[in-house]
Amino acid sequence: MNANSTPPSHLPLAVGVDFGGTSVKIGLASGAELTGPVESLRTSDHSGPRSMLRAIADVVDRFRQAPGGERIRAIGMGVPGVVDHQSGICAHLTNVEGWNNLPLRDLLQEATGLPAAVDNDANCATNAEWRHGAAKGLRHVIVITLGTGVGGGLVLDGHLYRGATFAAGEIGHVSVDFRGVPGPHGNVGALERYVGNRQIVDMARHLYSEAGQSEAAMNDDLSPRLLAEAATKGDAVALEVWNRVSHYLATALAGSVYLLNPEAIVIGGGVAQAGAVLFEPLQKMLFGMLPTEFTSILRILPARYGNTAGIIGSAALGLEVA
Amino acid sequence: MNANSTPPSHLPLAVGVDFGGTSVKIGLASGAELTGPVESLRTSDHSGPRSMLRAIADVVDRFRQAPGGERIRAIGMGVPGVVDHQSGICAHLTNVEGWNNLPLRDLLQEATGLPAAVDNDANCATNAEWRHGAAKGLRHVIVITLGTGVGGGLVLDGHLYRGATFAAGEIGHVSVDFRGVPGPHGNVGALERYVGNRQIVDMARHLYSEAGQSEAAMNDDLSPRLLAEAATKGDAVALEVWNRVSHYLATALAGSVYLLNPEAIVIGGGVAQAGAVLFEPLQKMLFGMLPTEFTSILRILPARYGNTAGIIGSAALGLEVA
Repeated sequence: MNANSTPPSHLPLAVGVDFGGTSVKIGLASGAELTGPVESLRTSDHSGPRSMLRAIADVVDRFRQAPGGERIRAIGMGVPGVVDHQSGICAHLTNVEGWNNLPLRDLLQEATGLPAAVDNDANCATNAEWRHGAAKGLRHVIVITLGTGVGGGLVLDGHLYRGATFAAGEIGHVSVDFRGVPGPHGNVGALERYVGNRQIVDMARHLYSEAGQSEAAMNDDLSPRLLAEAATKGDAVALEVWNRVSHYLATALAGSVYLLNPEAIVIGGGVAQAGAVLFEPLQKMLFGMLPTEFTSILRILPARYGNTAGIIGSAALGLEVA
Repeated sequence: MNANSTPPSHLPLAVGVDFGGTSVKIGLASGAELTGPVESLRTSDHSGPRSMLRAIADVVDRFRQAPGGERIRAIGMGVPGVVDHQSGICAHLTNVEGWNNLPLRDLLQEATGLPAAVDNDANCATNAEWRHGAAKGLRHVIVITLGTGVGGGLVLDGHLYRGATFAAGEIGHVSVDFRGVPGPHGNVGALERYVGNRQIVDMARHLYSEAGQSEAAMNDDLSPRLLAEAATKGDAVALEVWNRVSHYLATALAGSVYLLNPEAIVIGGGVAQAGAVLFEPLQKMLFGMLPTEFTSILRILPARYGNTAGIIGSAALGLEVA
């Protein structure tokens, strides 16, 4: 926390909890900013919900005892799974056992004594970009997060859109090829099978090999980050990798734009750190696939938040119910 | 109008206008049913909006003078183009000249003396299925219309969804192949380039040729309807055609389901008349591409309305503003 980010003392604060398969990150937010350091719990240190919720409540107690703690009004929590944000019930989590059919919001409220909101992690990240980030003030937004997998969230007609069973926004599973690579759910050609972290590295190894650059092909450190640096320096293979990634993304995003006619596509996640070598070809290809009635209001925007999106977005959801 | 469809005399009526490139169809509706025969005007008989609106007003006058005419409360109109349903301004029509930047709703209101609503034709057809047809009472619906082209409309969170510039729902332009057939807007692999009327017939000619059935391949009457009859009788090539059509559709629809998590997909238009030879493989393939959280509430439903969807749906929109 530095002097510049100190929020005016009349503003309410909220706790944001970003529940991940490896760690649970907890921070205190005042609107768009964190007001202090993020605390982290190891997911595997806790055998189940009771133990985890008690540990979260302990962190919240410390936040309350620190200066400004009296301004904490609510808590929000994003989880990696299917959760009904209205009833607050968590149906199940991906890769974490013991959280099935749990009244998560009520338990969180009980454990912390704060008004609570729960949602899935992708919706929390989307909420951060919409309420305080790149898409602030817009009414129709697609958020896509590029990392190991490809996730997403939607803001439609000025509301977070969650779908009939709170499973909407899975743009990573949209097909870009009806004859394509098989996915885990019987779907073929899913976007994330082409532009996930590992797939980008595999594509680069393949193209470096084809180009006779076996040293580059076998570089153990090859990563999207390294490929972005190489492309920025003019490496032909790396540039071709980002061209192909852009083409897959543009195909899936064009379909999403034809369906949803958004004002903005916000692109976040580690792969999006590639910057201009990704955003420039992507913008050009995508706009080349759409007529004017769609492109006239469409913008491609880099996400404002990185790792803290889940905390900022869940804290904001908490304040909405406080 | 027969005795069974006579509406209770206290129910309000509305005029629905379905503006097409060839003809303008005008009918009187009481909720889910037409209350009389549909009148038709030739689009090309009218040089522009003033003349057309006067002709529509003349039909409305006749409706009002007929028995029950005193119960007419509103008029709705669906047009083939981009229209802002809130301001009532028609930006432009596809394939019809002279309707650019026109305050269509106000002109319609003036010409007929009735409260008026205007929207695009796909939204009107979607509204018919949602308010009175296959998707009645649902909150998350994708409507897809299979004909010469492939159109669509969306109901999301219990509202017709139109997008930022009233252009949403264009599922026919969603790509099923990033290396696919080029489309008119620079997009590649657009669904309608695979499952439009003409594409289905071309595919059948090609497959009949490959199978050495040159008589069937050269049949001038070949149509989706004929191919449905042939498939129903067990014709192997025709069955393969519907399998392929189902696979393209399932690919695009699976992507739309991953994005929007709807309760129903309503399928209408001439091609949907194929019935079981289309719906059975489509349901099987689509459900095979999705995990349980999506399929548990998803239904594939044939549309209730055919040619009258535009009239029923626009009349219903009219009553909403009356």
